[in-house]
Amino acid sequence: MTISELGEFGLIEVIAAIAAGLPRGDRTIVGIGDDAAVLAAPDTRVVATTDLLIEGRHFRRDWSGPADIGAKAAAQNLADVAAMGADPVALLVGFAAPGDVAVAWARDLMAGLAGECARAGATVVGGDTSGADLVVLAITALGDLGGRDPVTRSGARPGDVLAYAGVLGESAAGLALLEAGLAEPAALITAHRRPAPRYAAGPEAAALGATAMIDVSDGLLADAGHLARASGVQIDIDTARLPGHPGLAAAAATLGREGRGGVLDWMLTGGEDHALAATFPPGRALPSYWTVIGQVRAGQGVLVDGNQMTGRAGWKHFGD
Amino acid sequence: MTISELGEFGLIEVIAAIAAGLPRGDRTIVGIGDDAAVLAAPDTRVVATTDLLIEGRHFRRDWSGPADIGAKAAAQNLADVAAMGADPVALLVGFAAPGDVAVAWARDLMAGLAGECARAGATVVGGDTSGADLVVLAITALGDLGGRDPVTRSGARPGDVLAYAGVLGESAAGLALLEAGLAEPAALITAHRRPAPRYAAGPEAAALGATAMIDVSDGLLADAGHLARASGVQIDIDTARLPGHPGLAAAAATLGREGRGGVLDWMLTGGEDHALAATFPPGRALPSYWTVIGQVRAGQGVLVDGNQMTGRAGWKHFGD
Repeated sequence: MTISELGEFGLIEVIAAIAAGLPRGDRTIVGIGDDAAVLAAPDTRVVATTDLLIEGRHFRRDWSGPADIGAKAAAQNLADVAAMGADPVALLVGFAAPGDVAVAWARDLMAGLAGECARAGATVVGGDTSGADLVVLAITALGDLGGRDPVTRSGARPGDVLAYAGVLGESAAGLALLEAGLAEPAALITAHRRPAPRYAAGPEAAALGATAMIDVSDGLLADAGHLARASGVQIDIDTARLPGHPGLAAAAATLGREGRGGVLDWMLTGGEDHALAATFPPGRALPSYWTVIGQVRAGQGVLVDGNQMTGRAGWKHFGD
Repeated sequence: MTISELGEFGLIEVIAAIAAGLPRGDRTIVGIGDDAAVLAAPDTRVVATTDLLIEGRHFRRDWSGPADIGAKAAAQNLADVAAMGADPVALLVGFAAPGDVAVAWARDLMAGLAGECARAGATVVGGDTSGADLVVLAITALGDLGGRDPVTRSGARPGDVLAYAGVLGESAAGLALLEAGLAEPAALITAHRRPAPRYAAGPEAAALGATAMIDVSDGLLADAGHLARASGVQIDIDTARLPGHPGLAAAAATLGREGRGGVLDWMLTGGEDHALAATFPPGRALPSYWTVIGQVRAGQGVLVDGNQMTGRAGWKHFGD
C-alpha cells in the first residue's frame, strides 16, 4: 500500500500509532492529534531547535534505509538540544513524501525516528504530513534545562580547554566509502547512516561547568570557528591529541587517501557525527569520554597546531 | 544576488537580521545563532505545533509574492497555537530554496513571516536553511497558555453550541478566482494569499469557557468533523446562520457557480482562512465576533441542516 492510497489522515494515524507505542512520559499534556501539542516545562524555560532534511541533499533513499534516515534526522536535532546543556524531551515531525512511497517505508522511517527519540529519553508529540515530489523531513526538538543555565556558543574564555565527546570523522569516512561504491568497513557505513550522539554528555557538560558548547554538524574546524567567533576568542586545535582510529586509517588506505582527503580531513572537517565540542575552564577534571584537543586563547579564528587552518571550513549546502 | 552566491551562513545572517528587527520580547533567553533557542515558559507548559509547506502544493511563486507566502506560512501555525487557547510566542523557521532564488525574494519572505509574527505578538527565535530544488518552508510555532487550561478538540458536550470567529470561504473563493485567471475581487485574492486570523480570539475563547476548539484549515465540515470525532459527539451546522457575504456571492456569479461549487461550498469546505471554530456551553454570552452556527448533540459525525453532509469533507493532499 502506498501513501497515496492511505491518504493524509491515514498516514497521521500510522504516525500517531508509532508515537503511542513510545513511553508517553509525564511531560506530554496534549500529544498528537490536536491543533498543537502541550508539554510540561517545569523549568519555566524551553529549548527549541529545528532542522530541514531534503532527499538528495541530506540523505539518499538508495544509500540509507528508512529507519536509518529517521534515526539520523532525529539525532541531529536531539544533539542540538543536548549541545545547549538540556535534556531532549520531545520531537515534532513534519514529513512530506511522494504518493508512491510505500506506507511500510514511512512507517519504518517513523519507527527509526521514534527509536532514536527513545534512546534520548524524548517522545514524538506532534507533526504534519504532506505530499511532495521528494521526501522532506522537518524536525523540531524541544528540551528541558533542568535548572541548569543554557550553555551557549559565546562563553569560551582564554585559558579554557576545548574538548569533545563522541566520535569525529566516522560519518565522513562512511560517506566517502559509499561514494566509492564500497560497503566496508560496515561500522563506518553505519556511522554515516545512523550516527549515535552521546546526548547525556550535553547536560553533564553543563553540570561540569562547560563555558561554551556546540554540536559538531558542520565539521570540527567550522564548528570550533562558530564557538571562537561567538565567544570572541581564538581556538587552537592540537592534532596530536586527536585519538588514533584504526578504522578510519583502514578506510583511508582502501580509498588511497593516506594524505589529503583522509583521516585528518575527516576528523577536522567531517560533519554529521554530532559529537559535542565544549570548552571548559582550565584544570577541570573531565570524565574519560571527553577528550581535550585544544586550547582557547585571546584572538580570533581557529588554528590547527598553531597555524592558520587550511582546507574545507565546513559544508556549503547551497549551489554545491 | 542569489542564495547560491550568498551561501548558507550569509542567508542565516539575513534571516537573523530580520529577526533582530523584531521586538525581541522578554521571552527570548537565547535567540537565533546558537544550537537551539531558549524561551521563557513562565506558565510551566509550552504549546508547540509544526507545519510543512511545499512549493506547488501549498503555494505557488507565480501566484503569491514572497511576503504573502511568508505571512501565510506563519499565520497557519500561529493560528494552531491560538486554537489551543494559547498566545503565540515564537516561531522557528526552516527554509529551503533553489540556489537561483534571489536573496531579495528570501528576504521578503522572511519579512512577511516576521510581520505576521509581530501581528500575533510572537518573534522568530531560530531556524535552519538548506538548498532544495523547490522552496520548502517548515514552521514551528510555540505558545503560552498564560495559566489557562488548553482547549483541545475533545471537550465538546451535547447541548454546546458551535461558533466561529474570523472568515470562512474567502481563501477558497480567492483560489478559485486565481485558477480561473482572474485578479478581482482583490479582497478575495488577498484573503487567499494572506489570510489574517484573529489570534486573540483563541485565548479569549479559552477564558470564555470554550469546551473544544480547532483552527479551520481543512474546511469547516472537515474540522467540525475532527471536533465531533475527538469529542464523541454530533455537530449539526445550520447554514441559515452563516452570514451573507456579498463578496463571495459576486465571485460565485463571476465564475458561474451560483449553485454547487459556489458560496456554500466555499464556506463549508474551503480551508486556509484559519477561522477558529469552538464549542461553548449553552447560553454563554459571546463577543460579537463569534457567530453561532451549529449545535452539539449526542451522536456522531457532522450534519448540515440536520442531514448527512455531502460534498468534499476536506482537502486531500496526497495523490491529488
